Amino acid sequence: MLNFVKVVCCGSGPITSKANSRVKHARKVLTNRRVREREGLIFVEGIRLVLDAVAAKNEPEVLFFTDRAMSKGEYGAAMQKLISTLPHDRVVYSSEEIMQHLTDTENCQGVAAVLKKKQAIAPAQPSLVLALDRLSDPGNVGTLIRTAAGAGAHAVFLTKGSADPFGLKTLRAGMGAQFRIPVLPNWEWSDIESYSRERGLALIVADGSGDVRHYSYDWKEPSMLVVGAEADGPSEEVLKSADCCVSIPLAEDSAESLNAAVAGAVILFEAQRQRIVG
Amino acid sequence: MLNFVKVVCCGSGPITSKANSRVKHARKVLTNRRVREREGLIFVEGIRLVLDAVAAKNEPEVLFFTDRAMSKGEYGAAMQKLISTLPHDRVVYSSEEIMQHLTDTENCQGVAAVLKKKQAIAPAQPSLVLALDRLSDPGNVGTLIRTAAGAGAHAVFLTKGSADPFGLKTLRAGMGAQFRIPVLPNWEWSDIESYSRERGLALIVADGSGDVRHYSYDWKEPSMLVVGAEADGPSEEVLKSADCCVSIPLAEDSAESLNAAVAGAVILFEAQRQRIVG
Repeated sequence: MLNFVKVVCCGSGPITSKANSRVKHARKVLTNRRVREREGLIFVEGIRLVLDAVAAKNEPEVLFFTDRAMSKGEYGAAMQKLISTLPHDRVVYSSEEIMQHLTDTENCQGVAAVLKKKQAIAPAQPSLVLALDRLSDPGNVGTLIRTAAGAGAHAVFLTKGSADPFGLKTLRAGMGAQFRIPVLPNWEWSDIESYSRERGLALIVADGSGDVRHYSYDWKEPSMLVVGAEADGPSEEVLKSADCCVSIPLAEDSAESLNAAVAGAVILFEAQRQRIVG
Repeated sequence: MLNFVKVVCCGSGPITSKANSRVKHARKVLTNRRVREREGLIFVEGIRLVLDAVAAKNEPEVLFFTDRAMSKGEYGAAMQKLISTLPHDRVVYSSEEIMQHLTDTENCQGVAAVLKKKQAIAPAQPSLVLALDRLSDPGNVGTLIRTAAGAGAHAVFLTKGSADPFGLKTLRAGMGAQFRIPVLPNWEWSDIESYSRERGLALIVADGSGDVRHYSYDWKEPSMLVVGAEADGPSEEVLKSADCCVSIPLAEDSAESLNAAVAGAVILFEAQRQRIVG
């Protein structure tokens, strides 16, 4: 392993300075959504997520690794293989302290990367897509992207005002699903509506006061499910364009409500059940 | 409002010292599960959660409040009413700094309480219950308790090794559902199994490799759904006692999997759908 490091890093020791220009830039990409979007970059941490990102054709600009990353069995081997295929000037051998500075996690796996984000393309003829309207919690957004991928949805759209689907917390909650399904942030609602009209998708809004039960709607029809903001629910604009508002019937105690990610998941998998059962 | 504070607190100013014995004890209850369980106490923060806890007959030992708590419209009025019914020696008027020290949140609502926890009772003849087997993430545990209450389950059991359902993070994720449905922590699996056998509940385990699809099982039968640990899934012991292992079919890409709380939610609401549709 030491030999490997020597070969890749031309014999030099690990970087230890937080003032290193590449470390400073990576921190900016990690912490600042505007920098990420302006430069078309993402910051990814952890062996599995970095491998997923690269497999999905996001191009590594710089990959940081520590000794720890190489000792992780099967994944460590895949990581060594990845590193050995990258140009030497894109690989930075780092101290554990630098890695911790970069990732804000204590139990990080010793790998992080800044990657050029591959542009996602909205599918031409989808039969099920998810749209998130001003969903602001990164955990909910990541969980819903992961769930949409699991339920066989073809894309996830996000309106302006939603959490960044490619922020670090969102990537963690998404477990890399962002790299397996097209994820399209920063849309105006009117453009999402046009997209769905042009493709013949019915606009179905999850809404606690919706008058159709979520399992009574016919999800075999080409559909876009819209999930609204955690606290306020779907916006007026979204409700106005809805073809149907579906609600999940809850136990009698009216104090109950559902987390936005849970509500989205229950409906997406009801859609999937109907599509399988026929 | 100032008059109200004067009457309740006998004219004295707010407590400002972290060394105050009641502040110190409340911090211990907040931060230490063993203290909570040994003394039968819970620590609750936020107007809505405190009101829910009291409404569910958890007895306030001490309630801390700041000026901020009284200015919250409808809820503020409910809080004033609660405070005025408590013995004066159970109410502590606190500075904002003390409240922040107590709750670890910057945007707290100015109310926190230590309460004697009402003992939960396992229902005698339930038709749907949820059991969590070493589920360690407080967010997942809280979300599943909230979801179980929403889906009309009659209780939530947790094995030893699961997150504390009455820790602050879990209470927040549960949105107070812990006070509306019996929640029973620290069970041995063998006791959960006996409980379900004695009541004629089928033991249905959520398991990614289960050979029955979650919607093919007949959830109109009295059932206990078991959700296992986030990373490892259900334990050998649980699998051995299962009457049926159900899995949620996922989109073809085998990289997909579901968050434990999402998987539990999808199955609980499929059970509820079948029970409504008949």
